[in-house]
Amino acid sequence: MEKSLLPEELAAMSRVPRLNFFNTLPGIKPAVLIGTVDGRNRTNLAIFNSLVHIGSNPPYLGFIMRPLTVPRHTYHNILERGAFTINVVHRDIYPQAHQTSANYEWGTSEFTATGLTPQFTDRLVAPYVQECHIKIGMQFEEEHRIKANGTVLMIGRAVEILLPENAILPSGHINLEDWGTVGVAGLDAYYRLEPLERLPYARASAIAPDN
Amino acid sequence: MEKSLLPEELAAMSRVPRLNFFNTLPGIKPAVLIGTVDGRNRTNLAIFNSLVHIGSNPPYLGFIMRPLTVPRHTYHNILERGAFTINVVHRDIYPQAHQTSANYEWGTSEFTATGLTPQFTDRLVAPYVQECHIKIGMQFEEEHRIKANGTVLMIGRAVEILLPENAILPSGHINLEDWGTVGVAGLDAYYRLEPLERLPYARASAIAPDN
Repeated sequence: MEKSLLPEELAAMSRVPRLNFFNTLPGIKPAVLIGTVDGRNRTNLAIFNSLVHIGSNPPYLGFIMRPLTVPRHTYHNILERGAFTINVVHRDIYPQAHQTSANYEWGTSEFTATGLTPQFTDRLVAPYVQECHIKIGMQFEEEHRIKANGTVLMIGRAVEILLPENAILPSGHINLEDWGTVGVAGLDAYYRLEPLERLPYARASAIAPDN
Repeated sequence: MEKSLLPEELAAMSRVPRLNFFNTLPGIKPAVLIGTVDGRNRTNLAIFNSLVHIGSNPPYLGFIMRPLTVPRHTYHNILERGAFTINVVHRDIYPQAHQTSANYEWGTSEFTATGLTPQFTDRLVAPYVQECHIKIGMQFEEEHRIKANGTVLMIGRAVEILLPENAILPSGHINLEDWGTVGVAGLDAYYRLEPLERLPYARASAIAPDN
């Protein structure tokens, strides 16, 4: 049986079940680690599930920061240094990736705290995660403050991509399952990915599936 | 071996492989159908992989629209009617959901073209997808034009949620695998979800995995 849930019932739920509910409701999300560095070169690493594609040419990605009612190291570091990295979480490191969400003191690097290894290149000040297979170096581009609740859409432009030599298929695709990529539902439920099918480009002349 | 790919190499790829590459690179994405209706009550349905969590209380979700260089029915309908629905794509309907991305003529409803069934409630003018298990009715809240490339972040507030009676666990979670929820890599590679683990809330005092 289908039931209908209204906003007042959602508001009446206690905080943690409401968070779990509304975060898992709309489906699977990407899990990425965002690496940054502050003005004193102290590294920071944080897991995000709000990554969103903005464009391919030029290559832009965005993500949502929670409201700036408390200091957000990732946010301040990106504004100060103009750079961040996006590191795709995979099967062998998701518990460490998840652990970066703990509330460490300012000055404690999540790299040290979780045992993940910072990796630097000549092109970017921000640290990559050495253990990740797929890493994107980003230059900060713009931010948008969401009026509704004070969250912030952060947008960057890819300036370097690090990945295994054989990762790109002739079609341009990356097989996520080959690299152990995981997804996350809500804030804590991790999933591995089982390929169903790659569908052809949809054309208006195709026969509708019910015909 | 790890290799480094620079923006000029990305720009030199031909269009379709570049789209496939940069869209699959950052990992798995949610697959949802967005349902709208125009001023003459003509329904529209389109698949999106750019859904993003904005907040839980009040409940906000956002998604990215491509640049408005051509008419985008979803965009115009949301502005005209102030409402849209988000319908989570599952195993039994992903080919039909994918087919909504075909370039149908204005006036041809993707519901009719794909055989999916519009479903209406008293609270919302926009159509839900009857075949979906998890459906969120949204009231349009705000939009943000991305300066970098003209895409638009659209934000709405959940005003009604339709779901199976037994879908919400005591913890508030929804088990995506119970409802056949799929994910999508890029624009065309569909995946089913295999649960790995639900991890506890991360605390700074936890033992680091490498200790």
